[in-house]
Amino acid sequence: MASTVGAPIICNAAVSWEAGKPLVIEKVEVAPPKAMEVRDQTPLFPRIFGHEAAGIVESVGEGVTELKEGDHVLPVFTGECKECVHCKSEESNMCDLLRINTDRGVMLSDGRSRFTAKGTPINHFLGTSTFSEYTVVHVGSLAKLDPSAPLDKVCILSCGISTGLGATLNVAKPKKGSTVAIFGLGAVGLGAAEGARIAGASRIIGIDFNPNRFEGARKFGINEFLNPKDYDKPIQEVIAEKTNGGVDRSIECTGNVEAMISAFECVHDGWGVAVLVGVPSKDAKFITKPINLLNERTLKGTFFGNYKPRSDLPSVVDMYMRKELELEKFITHRVTFSEINKAFDLMVKGEGLRCIITMDH
Amino acid sequence: MASTVGAPIICNAAVSWEAGKPLVIEKVEVAPPKAMEVRDQTPLFPRIFGHEAAGIVESVGEGVTELKEGDHVLPVFTGECKECVHCKSEESNMCDLLRINTDRGVMLSDGRSRFTAKGTPINHFLGTSTFSEYTVVHVGSLAKLDPSAPLDKVCILSCGISTGLGATLNVAKPKKGSTVAIFGLGAVGLGAAEGARIAGASRIIGIDFNPNRFEGARKFGINEFLNPKDYDKPIQEVIAEKTNGGVDRSIECTGNVEAMISAFECVHDGWGVAVLVGVPSKDAKFITKPINLLNERTLKGTFFGNYKPRSDLPSVVDMYMRKELELEKFITHRVTFSEINKAFDLMVKGEGLRCIITMDH
Repeated sequence: MASTVGAPIICNAAVSWEAGKPLVIEKVEVAPPKAMEVRDQTPLFPRIFGHEAAGIVESVGEGVTELKEGDHVLPVFTGECKECVHCKSEESNMCDLLRINTDRGVMLSDGRSRFTAKGTPINHFLGTSTFSEYTVVHVGSLAKLDPSAPLDKVCILSCGISTGLGATLNVAKPKKGSTVAIFGLGAVGLGAAEGARIAGASRIIGIDFNPNRFEGARKFGINEFLNPKDYDKPIQEVIAEKTNGGVDRSIECTGNVEAMISAFECVHDGWGVAVLVGVPSKDAKFITKPINLLNERTLKGTFFGNYKPRSDLPSVVDMYMRKELELEKFITHRVTFSEINKAFDLMVKGEGLRCIITMDH
Repeated sequence: MASTVGAPIICNAAVSWEAGKPLVIEKVEVAPPKAMEVRDQTPLFPRIFGHEAAGIVESVGEGVTELKEGDHVLPVFTGECKECVHCKSEESNMCDLLRINTDRGVMLSDGRSRFTAKGTPINHFLGTSTFSEYTVVHVGSLAKLDPSAPLDKVCILSCGISTGLGATLNVAKPKKGSTVAIFGLGAVGLGAAEGARIAGASRIIGIDFNPNRFEGARKFGINEFLNPKDYDKPIQEVIAEKTNGGVDRSIECTGNVEAMISAFECVHDGWGVAVLVGVPSKDAKFITKPINLLNERTLKGTFFGNYKPRSDLPSVVDMYMRKELELEKFITHRVTFSEINKAFDLMVKGEGLRCIITMDH
């Protein structure tokens, strides 16, 4: 048992003291986990952000039986309590208890934070707060990992890549030899493309306003590219012409409502399925002619690729370990924890796909 | 072989000489079937309307091997060529060759009509023209029937009832014990309710602006009724409140785009599926917030209940023969062919569900 069990831990965390300011690495005190919580590594300020990560369990609170010290885990921004109607439904991963909540900065059991710095409680973020050497997470928000899986690679499975991959494999379900359109070639879209490649799609068409993304996207199986700026008609019409009436499946990974409409209208009548992944602005309106639906098209939304985090992520890690899923190509940069703001600079500039931040003691 | 094979037949048909005028029973000459056509029983005028029917094959044209004189058949307004990409797809019934076409009044092989009256060619309707004692139909638009099935009952399976039934059984697929909302309690909606009853749904909620329809709808398994006029908020909100967040499945059978939006928005997040059946006006726009989709709702349209007419209708007839599907309750009126305009009067007044017209020689 770690000597720290039951005691507060002082460690470094990247604290966001104010909106819009760089993160500051601070010594923070992380309280021991309470009932049903796990200490592993939060727009409320001050807050510790971070939600894509992998870690090793340091200690567990009362009532935790599924995890123990030393277990390798993926903290996930949306949890799985295994008790609510969503967790009990085969079809949903939208846990009532632990569903994503951007507004909560405290733990569920007592409504308090487990972080303190400079005498101030620091808010948690998405139930994960992974920009810290230690964090406390609800057991329902941790997927247990194969201990042989490299943490510095599988960490990227805890959000965007799994979201895109699952949108294709769990929701769009393209058949071998089919034609798939991917709207938006960021990491989520490339995760969706990776899913289409794994499913054996023969034509994978990437659509993006930024042609600089096209060359790099070839590694993810995308073999045709369209920039809507190059055409004077809606891109769905261009796609329908190039595919004899439409694609078999489309996956929208931009969050732009016009792209959502194009993604829906570019699928073939009779069997086409469009899957919406991107998070739209609050006021966005999806508008289409009902005949587009009556012609036997299907429109579906997905959240975290329909993966139930605790139940399903281990199988995604297995796909990586069997070399079916190629994660390395998503990892374009690495920085140390003290260089964390460099990772934000890269993201703001749109450089690369995923930057791994390593905690180097 | 019938003595009429290869020769024109003179018979009675209800001819629509002009838009908006009553049908006139006329002697018409029906030419023998040409290649790939079957003589069995059309807004172009003059036209012979009628598309829900059952009949017996009188003779067949060159190349017809699947049907022969004496076979019992259901003519269907949308066909199945078994050769096109839609017919070859497991998921589609929208045959490229024989898909519903309201504007065509002639046979495909030679672009001509097989009907003549008073020296004028009379247009066909939906490839069926069943308001005639004899008609010529493409073999791809005829489903072969179990000869023991009563023609004067199973005839109603050739359009609306199958459309509603299939929307539930083939597309919405409610599980046993689930909650289903049906928008619109005409014959199609009651066909959808019948599907929900057969699937074992425990709560079937009927929504209609006409409360006179509620009592009769109980026979179709509907056990709760809502009239949107009784509430001062959107009916989807009322439904969500009554069902702990939404129904598992909804089926929209009105064609009204507002009902379509309500039908979509009243399904539960995480797993809800809404199926659109009603045919909307050309200018209708389906508008919803994308977040309704991202919360893992599915929106699907269907055409003829996703039944492939030749391949699948025999199994629907079997459901009736096994007494799983109850057709009698849809049949509220019967008239003879000479009284055909009485059937239209009933329809215009909204009385009853289906009126059987019998050809009594």
